Amino acid sequence: MVKPFGELVYSPENAPEEVKGKAETHAPKIEAPEKVKAGEAFKVTVKVGPHPSTPEHSIRWVELYYYEEGRAFNPVFVGRAFFAPGYMEPEVTFTMKVQKPGVLYALAYCNLHGLWESRKEIKVE
Amino acid sequence: MVKPFGELVYSPENAPEEVKGKAETHAPKIEAPEKVKAGEAFKVTVKVGPHPSTPEHSIRWVELYYYEEGRAFNPVFVGRAFFAPGYMEPEVTFTMKVQKPGVLYALAYCNLHGLWESRKEIKVE
Amino acid sequence: MVKPFGELVYSPENAPEEVKGKAETHAPKIEAPEKVKAGEAFKVTVKVGPHPSTPEHSIRWVELYYYEEGRAFNPVFVGRAFFAPGYMEPEVTFTMKVQKPGVLYALAYCNLHGLWESRKEIKVE
Amino acid sequence: MVKPFGELVYSPENAPEEVKGKAETHAPKIEAPEKVKAGEAFKVTVKVGPHPSTPEHSIRWVELYYYEEGRAFNPVFVGRAFFAPGYMEPEVTFTMKVQKPGVLYALAYCNLHGLWESRKEIKVE
Ligand SMILES: [Fe+3]
Ligand SMILES: [Fe+3]
Ligand SMILES: [Fe+3]
Ligand SMILES: [Fe+3]
Repeated sequence: MVKPFGELVYSPENAPEEVKGKAETHAPKIEAPEKVKAGEAFKVTVKVGPHPSTPEHSIRWVELYYYEEGRAFNPVFVGRAFFAPGYMEPEVTFTMKVQKPGVLYALAYCNLHGLWESRKEIKVE
Repeated sequence: MVKPFGELVYSPENAPEEVKGKAETHAPKIEAPEKVKAGEAFKVTVKVGPHPSTPEHSIRWVELYYYEEGRAFNPVFVGRAFFAPGYMEPEVTFTMKVQKPGVLYALAYCNLHGLWESRKEIKVE
Repeated sequence: MVKPFGELVYSPENAPEEVKGKAETHAPKIEAPEKVKAGEAFKVTVKVGPHPSTPEHSIRWVELYYYEEGRAFNPVFVGRAFFAPGYMEPEVTFTMKVQKPGVLYALAYCNLHGLWESRKEIKVE
Repeated sequence: MVKPFGELVYSPENAPEEVKGKAETHAPKIEAPEKVKAGEAFKVTVKVGPHPSTPEHSIRWVELYYYEEGRAFNPVFVGRAFFAPGYMEPEVTFTMKVQKPGVLYALAYCNLHGLWESRKEIKVE
């Protein structure tokens, strides 16, 4: 049976048994405040690894999406960073701002070990 | 409850009732052969719409992934096209090749109407 | 002396002697109409190669820019396609539209052989 | 006469008179060490602005290239960050490493005000 795309995205908690061993080094780690002020800039760091950075095996990119509470259609695609193998480590810091609370999703892609996600709730005061 | 990322990707068959009306104009249409020869180039066209192409509302990009049968970690990220609003219609043709049968996934992102997928099986003779 | 970025982009006619041998296989070929109608969609194909498509050596991506006559600030970035090594050949077709005449630029990047450009004038009737 | 692509990239020192007024808010600022150790990670921050971040007018992305001394073909494309209007400020921090001295180039693209570059030499001890 052909699966929907969503079932192909691994996360630490629902990765199939046979790929779970890669969660620690592939699931992105999100660093962001628990609570932010509406419209005020805050830093978001996404880190993956430790992981090799070679043409044959690297974290090619990370993407950020935001599920915004109360929005009719979600998620919002908010950013992407590409890392050239050999010259970049898989870590990036963005400067973000939101008007409403929601959930921030990070995706990381390894050319050998697939697509991994993690998520973090953002409260707005 | 916070959903996994995969549940945020809409598809024509499992989009929630309230967003289903956008499936026809947002779910990407994949044109590709049913069956290909291992390692031989074939064309893949991904079309979205009809849809506006303005800075306020457009299909920002499409992505292609391949679920390769027998591969330990899936999917493989195989391509992405970005469309500048006002100058590009949301349609792109790539030249692809595969060694093994699998499922080709297309994702399309509208800045107002979210992330939509569709999929197509590729047999290899 | 540190050069401006623009001098690092190779083109068939001004590539330095020592890299000229790579022009034939790296400078993108643009296929597009000589003359188009304002606001009407037309196809633009960008081809590179023949060129390997492996993780160690491939055309990683192509970009399209448009220099629009009469615009205060140029160029407009109009599209980009990324090609995963092993699964994609460096050829892509976009569906474009313009309101004014100008020059279409294609850039192609090879991870071993640098950044190559070509250009084509577009007339509008 | 049709210009080569490189002449379309603005920099603070060689921008034409009529666009020079935008240099302060559009030319990317690179923060990186003067001198690094071969193969050791260092931070590179690229900032643009202050600049609006709306669908009609924003810094859409920045790119990083490295001109590596002694390399036969330059530059190396080392990274790219995309900023969604409304949710991202045009500032990003990457974690980079180099084996050889060279020049780091940052490009920033504003959908209204074109393509801007800046550069910074990196020494290796
Ligand atoms: Fe990996
Ligand atoms: Fe839409
Ligand atoms: Fe090459
Ligand atoms: Fe601007």
